[in-house]
Amino acid sequence: MSIMTESRVGTGAVTATSVLTPTYEGDFVLDEHLLLESGRTLAGVTLHYAVYGKLNSARDNAVLVCHALSGSALVGSWWPELFAPGAVLSLHRDFVICINMLGSCYGSTGPGSVDPETGNIYGPDFPLVSIRDNVRAQARLLDSLGIRKLRLVLGGSIGGMQALEWAIHDPERVERAAIIGVAPVSAMGLALNHLQRQAIQHDPEWAGGHYLPQRPPRRGLSLARQIGMLSYKSATLFDERYGRRPNRNGEDPWGLDNLGGGLIGGRFDIAGYLDTQGERFNERFDANAYLAILRTMDTWDPLHGALSPAEVFGRIRARLSFVGISSDWLFPARDVREFAYTIRAAGVQADYREMTSDHGHDAFLAEQAELVRLLQ
Amino acid sequence: MSIMTESRVGTGAVTATSVLTPTYEGDFVLDEHLLLESGRTLAGVTLHYAVYGKLNSARDNAVLVCHALSGSALVGSWWPELFAPGAVLSLHRDFVICINMLGSCYGSTGPGSVDPETGNIYGPDFPLVSIRDNVRAQARLLDSLGIRKLRLVLGGSIGGMQALEWAIHDPERVERAAIIGVAPVSAMGLALNHLQRQAIQHDPEWAGGHYLPQRPPRRGLSLARQIGMLSYKSATLFDERYGRRPNRNGEDPWGLDNLGGGLIGGRFDIAGYLDTQGERFNERFDANAYLAILRTMDTWDPLHGALSPAEVFGRIRARLSFVGISSDWLFPARDVREFAYTIRAAGVQADYREMTSDHGHDAFLAEQAELVRLLQ
Repeated sequence: MSIMTESRVGTGAVTATSVLTPTYEGDFVLDEHLLLESGRTLAGVTLHYAVYGKLNSARDNAVLVCHALSGSALVGSWWPELFAPGAVLSLHRDFVICINMLGSCYGSTGPGSVDPETGNIYGPDFPLVSIRDNVRAQARLLDSLGIRKLRLVLGGSIGGMQALEWAIHDPERVERAAIIGVAPVSAMGLALNHLQRQAIQHDPEWAGGHYLPQRPPRRGLSLARQIGMLSYKSATLFDERYGRRPNRNGEDPWGLDNLGGGLIGGRFDIAGYLDTQGERFNERFDANAYLAILRTMDTWDPLHGALSPAEVFGRIRARLSFVGISSDWLFPARDVREFAYTIRAAGVQADYREMTSDHGHDAFLAEQAELVRLLQ
Repeated sequence: MSIMTESRVGTGAVTATSVLTPTYEGDFVLDEHLLLESGRTLAGVTLHYAVYGKLNSARDNAVLVCHALSGSALVGSWWPELFAPGAVLSLHRDFVICINMLGSCYGSTGPGSVDPETGNIYGPDFPLVSIRDNVRAQARLLDSLGIRKLRLVLGGSIGGMQALEWAIHDPERVERAAIIGVAPVSAMGLALNHLQRQAIQHDPEWAGGHYLPQRPPRRGLSLARQIGMLSYKSATLFDERYGRRPNRNGEDPWGLDNLGGGLIGGRFDIAGYLDTQGERFNERFDANAYLAILRTMDTWDPLHGALSPAEVFGRIRARLSFVGISSDWLFPARDVREFAYTIRAAGVQADYREMTSDHGHDAFLAEQAELVRLLQ
């Protein structure tokens, strides 16, 4: 779910592609309260979004891309190879729209926004916004643009949750959906998210969520990100790239660390890599937004409270494609496959495809050309 | 590496076996300084150990058991099924000895001990004690008991590191060694340990390692333990035991948490389990001891600084048995197998066996009967 190329790594990063500039990037403000699944309401909801290409006069060439946990509306920046000639998206054919999730810190309403009802920043009082709540808000934006058909909705990870929820919630609007590297979060995934939450909450700077913008819980967010990075990558990739080598800055794991104590020691290269990732993440993400989206992710289960899969999935009219990633241990390929088969058993047109990759969960961002090949 | 049965879990825990009482439990104090591989010396080194059974007059019936990260010398308490009739160890035939690792908090010299040279507790100044340093100290204890032959040395995880190092360091003394669920720590393992270290160091109560005994870094050690627990178990086991169920105390993941904020919410069952494990660990382990042993583990690589595997492993005279665990992702079975084959290629009698288990790394403690079957 890293959306940046990893410049600390010389190989395997995203192929250099000219970054695409959106046709338009802006905000949409809902004209009424959003009633959330939890029963609470969210007032003055803003959705930040970006579009690429042009909407045709029939308004039937729209494609919706849903981003992953720490992503933004700028899909042209983090998924550029999907726009390559002959790939999945076309600036000439499609009107591609990507909407920042609620709870995020990239422009849509989130914990850092002001609650119009109190005049204060939401902070830790930001409510649980479900995947379905996100889809319902996004639908209003599409309504305002006059888009009644989506040729395709697609996304990886939490973006895939949204893509499927679109097909369930708005069956007449969605023609096809691609759901990549995702299923309802497993017990191991819930465990990983629980650890990440604690890392942030334990940082004294978090202050129960009431931290000042200039004093965020940097160490907690860094550790959370590092725990996440483990689950986005694979042991094979780490062995290849870092192995047991000492950190490239010359630290000595068999010697003393900077503090001179004996308990810590110099870092291995993998530790230097993770620390760098944690520091970078602090430059671009907010701790409370991270917590909000983890909760959105954890609580997503289309069958929660349902009587049967048929009741939920039987509504779907779209053709679905599920993609599992062979080395993904956050959302294991077998979980994605079983999820796809459950949905197909409810009478839905659903196929399952598998990416063979050593990149782990991140493969949908790190090996875009292979993803394009699978989706074609 | 949990050494306690998991009473929160109704099934799959260690079979009830009467806890074995050691024949003797006590301390051995080295009569001279221990010169460490790092070049530093450790004065007044104490080894806490336990023995089971009796040393015969020929003094050739000794078996050395080496414990895992958070284990103790009381092998009869944490590996009881290895003493079952016809199993690996026999109170009638064997003189079983288990020695607490240096750096630990179960009786041997560690960060909580007083440095006789300064009169202060070592704390963060406790030096790196390597696996080889441990073996050299243990050898002096065996010398003092007149033990010149070890019928068997065995251990799981970091205990297996010691077992192999025994076979390398003291080839004439070791007849057989069983090395279970271990190889030099992979990049993923180094990453997991890096996260655990940070969890402790980020706790303000850690105070650079100078915490007061009555104010230890409880939250940091709890989080470290929870990260560790993930790596000792498997996704399959977690799915079976916890799935996506809400915490059994009645919390609601879709509702609010105790604080009433929206960012956290009620816990899932897996989160309740992990929190319980973290709390329990605080009752029995020390943060600096944890850091010390993580470092001992990370830095172990018999080939570090060697010219060739033959130079290091060619010294071995013992028959070696390596055991990989099918679902272990801290020390993947393929790593253990490849490590065994590297050693065999150096002319050593080494076989590889594999435990099929959903218990992950912990299988050597959680499925002792199966381990016994494999070792026979």
